[in-house]
Amino acid sequence: MEDHQDAQTAENDTEEFKAQAAGEPAAASADELQERVQALTAQSEEYMQRLARSQADFDNFRKRTIREKEELGKYASSKLISELLPVIDNFGRALETSPEGEGSESFVKGVQMIHRQFENVLLAEGLTAMETIGQPFNPEFHQAVMTVESDEYEEGIVVEELQKGYLLKDKVLRPAMVKVSG
Amino acid sequence: MEDHQDAQTAENDTEEFKAQAAGEPAAASADELQERVQALTAQSEEYMQRLARSQADFDNFRKRTIREKEELGKYASSKLISELLPVIDNFGRALETSPEGEGSESFVKGVQMIHRQFENVLLAEGLTAMETIGQPFNPEFHQAVMTVESDEYEEGIVVEELQKGYLLKDKVLRPAMVKVSG
Repeated sequence: MEDHQDAQTAENDTEEFKAQAAGEPAAASADELQERVQALTAQSEEYMQRLARSQADFDNFRKRTIREKEELGKYASSKLISELLPVIDNFGRALETSPEGEGSESFVKGVQMIHRQFENVLLAEGLTAMETIGQPFNPEFHQAVMTVESDEYEEGIVVEELQKGYLLKDKVLRPAMVKVSG
Repeated sequence: MEDHQDAQTAENDTEEFKAQAAGEPAAASADELQERVQALTAQSEEYMQRLARSQADFDNFRKRTIREKEELGKYASSKLISELLPVIDNFGRALETSPEGEGSESFVKGVQMIHRQFENVLLAEGLTAMETIGQPFNPEFHQAVMTVESDEYEEGIVVEELQKGYLLKDKVLRPAMVKVSG
């Protein structure tokens, strides 16, 4: 908007110069012409600078747009995957307590297959579960909900995972909820 | 790139004009000055036009970018949801044949709950299953894999659904695979 107004002002200015240049050619003295040459030179230079600035702004905007689109593309499904994490959590929990009777065998197998298929789609999208147990506690990846005594581990080590943490490509999508040795 | 070169050429031109204007002020005749005034006026006008064009291009690019980003945002999860459709298909099929024994009751309930939770996440994202049976066949929404005789329906009506079709917001994400009365 502002730029457009500039361009219009520019147009008016030039009309004025043209009128001066064409209006009374014989009557203008050398001094007057000299002044016009100087004014027009300044005017021309100003436009040239505005043009260069406008093009530089355009270039920067274009570059920023490309970067933003790449970023958008890379994490396009980030929100949806976040919302699917509770489904994955429940799926994993349900399969931990699947029945073992003969009547339910093929159903359980079917559900296990769907679970794997589901995980593979998300894996292909760049989702990975964090390895936590035995790792040093790191607030970037872990959310400590409790400190516990441990004979096995020294202080500040993740000893139990209460909820899985996930990375989407190189970003933490959800930190792992863990217990830490204290 | 091209624009940048323009701006550099512009700079050189102006330097030349400045040299002319400042170089030999006393020696220049009125005719020579008049010529310079005309040349500078033309030069100035050209820059003004290039500036207006550059700003108009920038404006158009900015508007297009906004539209493209809106589109990207609206259908950001389209690819992932497409890939999840086979998971949904299998989920639905598995639940059609869930066992009824007492030992598996709570497991089946759990899986049903996960299925609903999964569907609700996708529903919130804008995914809807098409209603097909009894509808006139429409190649925009339906993929006819077979024509069958029907006493119940007149010709060209969807009589059976072999695979669910889905819309994401206002776009067909996957057409329904159907049998049509012939």
